[in-house]
Amino acid sequence: MKNVIIILILALFSTSIFGQLRSIQERLGYPKDAKLVIIHADDLGVSHSENAASIMAMQKGSVSSASIMVPCPWFPEIAAFAQSNPSADLGLHLTLTSEWKYYKWGPVTAKEKVPGLVNNNGFLYSSVDSVYMRASAAEVEEEMRNQVIRAKQFGIDPTHLDAHMGTALQRPDYFKVYLKIGREFKIPVFIPRLLEVPLNVKFDTLISDKDVLVDNILSASPQDFKNGFTNFYTNGLKNLKPGLTYLIIHTAFDDEEMRAVTIDHPDWGAAWRQEDFNFFTSPECKKLLKDNNIYVITWREIRDKIVRK
Amino acid sequence: MKNVIIILILALFSTSIFGQLRSIQERLGYPKDAKLVIIHADDLGVSHSENAASIMAMQKGSVSSASIMVPCPWFPEIAAFAQSNPSADLGLHLTLTSEWKYYKWGPVTAKEKVPGLVNNNGFLYSSVDSVYMRASAAEVEEEMRNQVIRAKQFGIDPTHLDAHMGTALQRPDYFKVYLKIGREFKIPVFIPRLLEVPLNVKFDTLISDKDVLVDNILSASPQDFKNGFTNFYTNGLKNLKPGLTYLIIHTAFDDEEMRAVTIDHPDWGAAWRQEDFNFFTSPECKKLLKDNNIYVITWREIRDKIVRK
Repeated sequence: MKNVIIILILALFSTSIFGQLRSIQERLGYPKDAKLVIIHADDLGVSHSENAASIMAMQKGSVSSASIMVPCPWFPEIAAFAQSNPSADLGLHLTLTSEWKYYKWGPVTAKEKVPGLVNNNGFLYSSVDSVYMRASAAEVEEEMRNQVIRAKQFGIDPTHLDAHMGTALQRPDYFKVYLKIGREFKIPVFIPRLLEVPLNVKFDTLISDKDVLVDNILSASPQDFKNGFTNFYTNGLKNLKPGLTYLIIHTAFDDEEMRAVTIDHPDWGAAWRQEDFNFFTSPECKKLLKDNNIYVITWREIRDKIVRK
Repeated sequence: MKNVIIILILALFSTSIFGQLRSIQERLGYPKDAKLVIIHADDLGVSHSENAASIMAMQKGSVSSASIMVPCPWFPEIAAFAQSNPSADLGLHLTLTSEWKYYKWGPVTAKEKVPGLVNNNGFLYSSVDSVYMRASAAEVEEEMRNQVIRAKQFGIDPTHLDAHMGTALQRPDYFKVYLKIGREFKIPVFIPRLLEVPLNVKFDTLISDKDVLVDNILSASPQDFKNGFTNFYTNGLKNLKPGLTYLIIHTAFDDEEMRAVTIDHPDWGAAWRQEDFNFFTSPECKKLLKDNNIYVITWREIRDKIVRK
């Protein structure tokens, strides 16, 4: 009888519900009310400028993690960096769109196999809505899986998966295959807690104790850019809530290449990315993190302590 | 009888042999001993830096013609320029290789259809020899045709075809399909007279009065780069021979992007391309062309006066 009770207790500990009842701080071994943040650079691989600035922001600045766009032209450069820097916290920014005006890419899957993802010019669509109108979840699943396989082929051991422009996150059937790909490769996936309502899915029914919910997102808007990033990020860090915050930034240099990539699109443009780089490589940022008792963590920690435990 | 003689004379005028007996100067309406040169920038589309510098070198410098690499990431940018500048002399730099270290591209044809052109990573091979070892002339033909079709789809009306790294030129079976594609689309193709011996084909048997042989090639070697391009090009222009010379250059800026594209490869690297840009946008170059009575011509002239006459 005693054994049966112990087994029942152990079973309870391993259930998905129990896993999610414990806070992320407890699951990772931090104080219960700790403020955890992943300072995360998106869009690696998109350009040389993005790669060079993001590597510098990780090595010398406060950026703790970043994710790579596998279908992009500069993917081989960042893949070579990942291979020779295996401790860098690099995941995959699963990419279903190609949003810039004169600089484009297609899927990594043979176009004939994912016609719903490909426009008349053979590129991925520019907008999330265009993808939603044409691509099935099966096509999205195949493309995402092939992006993971390709990254591994290039020597990348991804610490996490997230979703470029949120495309894989905001349609319930895409979201399910996104979770599925994460489990298939035992890679943590970015799941924002705030998605539960708009997706109209009960996370209880979808996620397990191997998943991690991100409690808060801190990400600048075009209005924040107009008002100045120093204010925005300073306030954001000072007012960080306990739990896990995903601080999403885009680090690149305001150079000729990046201005050409982001032409006619000041939001998330070259100057924007340079400002992100400037703040997150500044001593002021480091001081803010320290003064406000913020734990800067990585996806590797989540992967190795939770997902692959 | 008189009519028969006239018909015979007309027939004689239209034969390929007669076409090639007349010099290029005569065929284009220049003085018999004129020195004609096409100052030609290769590799447009490879990078933003190459596009921006080459456009400037055509608009403000002495560059009269350029060719575009359709499979490259920055192809949409130069295609948009071509569409809005229909008088620019832009052809296609038919591309069968992807030679840089961390910045790669694949064919425009579905990879399954041209397996001999594609390496394990899905890119075109880095070297000409690797292409020669694996790709059939049928695969080369399909890829070249699809590059022309794609260029036209993007609004480019190509003035000529030439061959990136000479890949399509130096193997007799590739050379034949390269000629075939030119005829199919009525676009002049770059045929250097000096290829007759190494290709071991009689041009008499291959070319017609709709083809143009390029008499001379002026193109810098790594040794010329070490000795300084000003000397090399100055001497080259001063000693230009009568007939048609193809002056092959590569104009780009020595910036972060171009240094990253050409990493570990100083020959034809970023500094090399900046030097080409500097010389061919200089007043000294314009003066040399004038002082030496050189006619700077375009492929459009050849296309419209000879190939599409």
